[in-house]
Amino acid sequence: MLNLSEYTKTVASQARAAARELAVVTTQQKIDWLQAVAGLLRSRTQELLAANEQDLVKTSEYGLNDAAIDRLRLSADRLEGIAVAVEEIAKLPDPIGEIIETKLRPNGLEVSRVRVPLGVVFFIYESRPNVTIDAAALCVMSGNAVILRGGKEAFQSNSAFHKLLVDALTECGLPEHSVQLVSTTDREAVGHFLKLGELIDVTIPRGGRSLIERVNREAAMPVIKHFDGICHIYVDKSADLDMATSIVVNSKCQRPGVCNALETLLVHEDVADEFLPRVGKALVDQTVELRGCEKSKPLMPGAKPASEQDYGTEYLDLILSVRTVRSIDEAIDHITEFGSGHTDTIITEDSTAADYFTARVDSAAVMVNASTRFNDGGEFGLGAEIGISTDRFHARGPCGVREITTYKYVVHGDGQIRV
Amino acid sequence: MLNLSEYTKTVASQARAAARELAVVTTQQKIDWLQAVAGLLRSRTQELLAANEQDLVKTSEYGLNDAAIDRLRLSADRLEGIAVAVEEIAKLPDPIGEIIETKLRPNGLEVSRVRVPLGVVFFIYESRPNVTIDAAALCVMSGNAVILRGGKEAFQSNSAFHKLLVDALTECGLPEHSVQLVSTTDREAVGHFLKLGELIDVTIPRGGRSLIERVNREAAMPVIKHFDGICHIYVDKSADLDMATSIVVNSKCQRPGVCNALETLLVHEDVADEFLPRVGKALVDQTVELRGCEKSKPLMPGAKPASEQDYGTEYLDLILSVRTVRSIDEAIDHITEFGSGHTDTIITEDSTAADYFTARVDSAAVMVNASTRFNDGGEFGLGAEIGISTDRFHARGPCGVREITTYKYVVHGDGQIRV
Repeated sequence: MLNLSEYTKTVASQARAAARELAVVTTQQKIDWLQAVAGLLRSRTQELLAANEQDLVKTSEYGLNDAAIDRLRLSADRLEGIAVAVEEIAKLPDPIGEIIETKLRPNGLEVSRVRVPLGVVFFIYESRPNVTIDAAALCVMSGNAVILRGGKEAFQSNSAFHKLLVDALTECGLPEHSVQLVSTTDREAVGHFLKLGELIDVTIPRGGRSLIERVNREAAMPVIKHFDGICHIYVDKSADLDMATSIVVNSKCQRPGVCNALETLLVHEDVADEFLPRVGKALVDQTVELRGCEKSKPLMPGAKPASEQDYGTEYLDLILSVRTVRSIDEAIDHITEFGSGHTDTIITEDSTAADYFTARVDSAAVMVNASTRFNDGGEFGLGAEIGISTDRFHARGPCGVREITTYKYVVHGDGQIRV
Repeated sequence: MLNLSEYTKTVASQARAAARELAVVTTQQKIDWLQAVAGLLRSRTQELLAANEQDLVKTSEYGLNDAAIDRLRLSADRLEGIAVAVEEIAKLPDPIGEIIETKLRPNGLEVSRVRVPLGVVFFIYESRPNVTIDAAALCVMSGNAVILRGGKEAFQSNSAFHKLLVDALTECGLPEHSVQLVSTTDREAVGHFLKLGELIDVTIPRGGRSLIERVNREAAMPVIKHFDGICHIYVDKSADLDMATSIVVNSKCQRPGVCNALETLLVHEDVADEFLPRVGKALVDQTVELRGCEKSKPLMPGAKPASEQDYGTEYLDLILSVRTVRSIDEAIDHITEFGSGHTDTIITEDSTAADYFTARVDSAAVMVNASTRFNDGGEFGLGAEIGISTDRFHARGPCGVREITTYKYVVHGDGQIRV
């Protein structure tokens, strides 16, 4: 039997050694590797689909539902999509070595902050195998070694992807331990890795709440966490109500099961009589269940009453809480009390109201006249994301290559001493 | 007796409410407050010195040594110095509201990252009372509410400073709970605060190793830590040996008891015969005890042998480890193995060697031809510092106003929905 304590230490030490080399490779070497990965994704289609098939035949054993099976399934089209995403990452500016700022001090010292990798990333994720490629591409592009811990449901697919990633590393002369896949699905292995604060610089858990809570509790290193998305739209009295209807329906219905989907609609009472029947009908047409406050419920035929508990719930489903407010301040107070600091939107034609709202709502993304669904690494121009942080520390919102870096001060002098 | 659980929750909730207001005050309001604080430091000199005297008469009770008593002691001159430091902070650009970057996306969305406060800072520190004013000034300037937990030795001084800070807050119309001083010196209070992860955004412990380790173990929120400073100077074969001597002596002797003082000198063997006798003499003249490796010991009269343990020790005293190396790589390997990621310097006239060293040594500050003593908030142009981070996450090196901020995405659209 595998000695988990020894195994995890070996993997993490190998990652640390690889990270040291990876921190100083050239941009071109990283681009060459990304292009080699994209090439292998195309040339090994049959091999990858065969490995994926081995996972797919076991899905009933793991009790996966149809949506989970769909997420797990690869196809030639999906592989092409993954290859294109890798090529997109290759087009991003290399974050490493970026001089963030330089100050010339009165004594002649030149003090620069230079962007450097975080070092070793421990990434824990669930069934979608494409995440294996995305995460490895983002980590290597940002000079980090990564330890991948995927779900057991995708083990064969992930192993085939991992082999491809390592073959490309070897081909391009990069350290082979830059990308390692945890070779056991034993859940205890995670606990061992989480203790290795000296060897792992950050853990990123991407999965359900219980996983994230466990990691947060046990990790001896920083964690980039992704908790609930209880997202709001506030329809101001000055809103364009056609725009508001379109944005509310999109935010709720375009993909209701994700973190940046709308959960609560707040409407200024001055426009409630006109807006709520209209948006209510549009939502009911999309089979959304409406739960309204005392004032809003009668304005939306078929709506159920909303409780305090509703306002604190991330439905991840075609259900929407609705509440009228007497002012923008009441809307902000509601978001402060019930929101999760993820994504909140104001719909308004009044730029003063927009500025008031964006200054006072303290969420990872605060939007004006746009769907909550835009809080996403790709949509924000980060290329891809390894996760969306709901923390305030280090990185907030979508995390791309830059968010898994840090900086060091590089100081040039010509003999300065301190007096 | 004080109910610590209730008391700490009240203080933290008050801080949270104040932080919400403070996040949106104008730059001018913050500058007015800093100037009011500087004014009161000058007009209340007698009152402040009297409070300080109450602490000074108790120093023997707390067993303070002379150095600690000196750190605790205020004088009219020192108060003037503190007032000037506050005025310096008032001259810094307001970090809050800074638009870090803006991207216009192909769909017309304007995506900006805007700097915002972290929120509530819990700051734990030891005897120097001027730190009370520095920390409060840095926190308020960066829109953060702060909970100050000073040492019991400075309790009367800190209380007088705190009264002054709050009087200035009231005078300027800022929330009075922006700056709170923990009114009990019961050490258990710290444990209660550390559990309040929902109300406190970051804890900054500034003190001995045992305090930092305790905070790190117990804190439910992020911590900005400051561990050892095992700082190195590597004298390259191409070094200007006069410059090297001057920088080594300054780094070791200018203030040996602080974290950015030199602890280990690495010398390329090609210049050891010439350099070591010279620098050895200069150091012995400053009463430095030398501990050399096998090769360097005979070159420095009076030197003792250095052990492996010496290389991992932060002396904080007039003691220096010395080792010769055969190459720049051996120097980098030594620093990687024994260093603490604080400050490391290369002395060289060869810019290729300088670049090689700065790229590969992964410390908060890597310097070329300058004293290690420059790793400091004031010297780096940050105005002042609330601490020096030895972490890699969020903030590295000296932490000024910017390092206790975060960002949010502010997105402006004109009706965009996601397709």
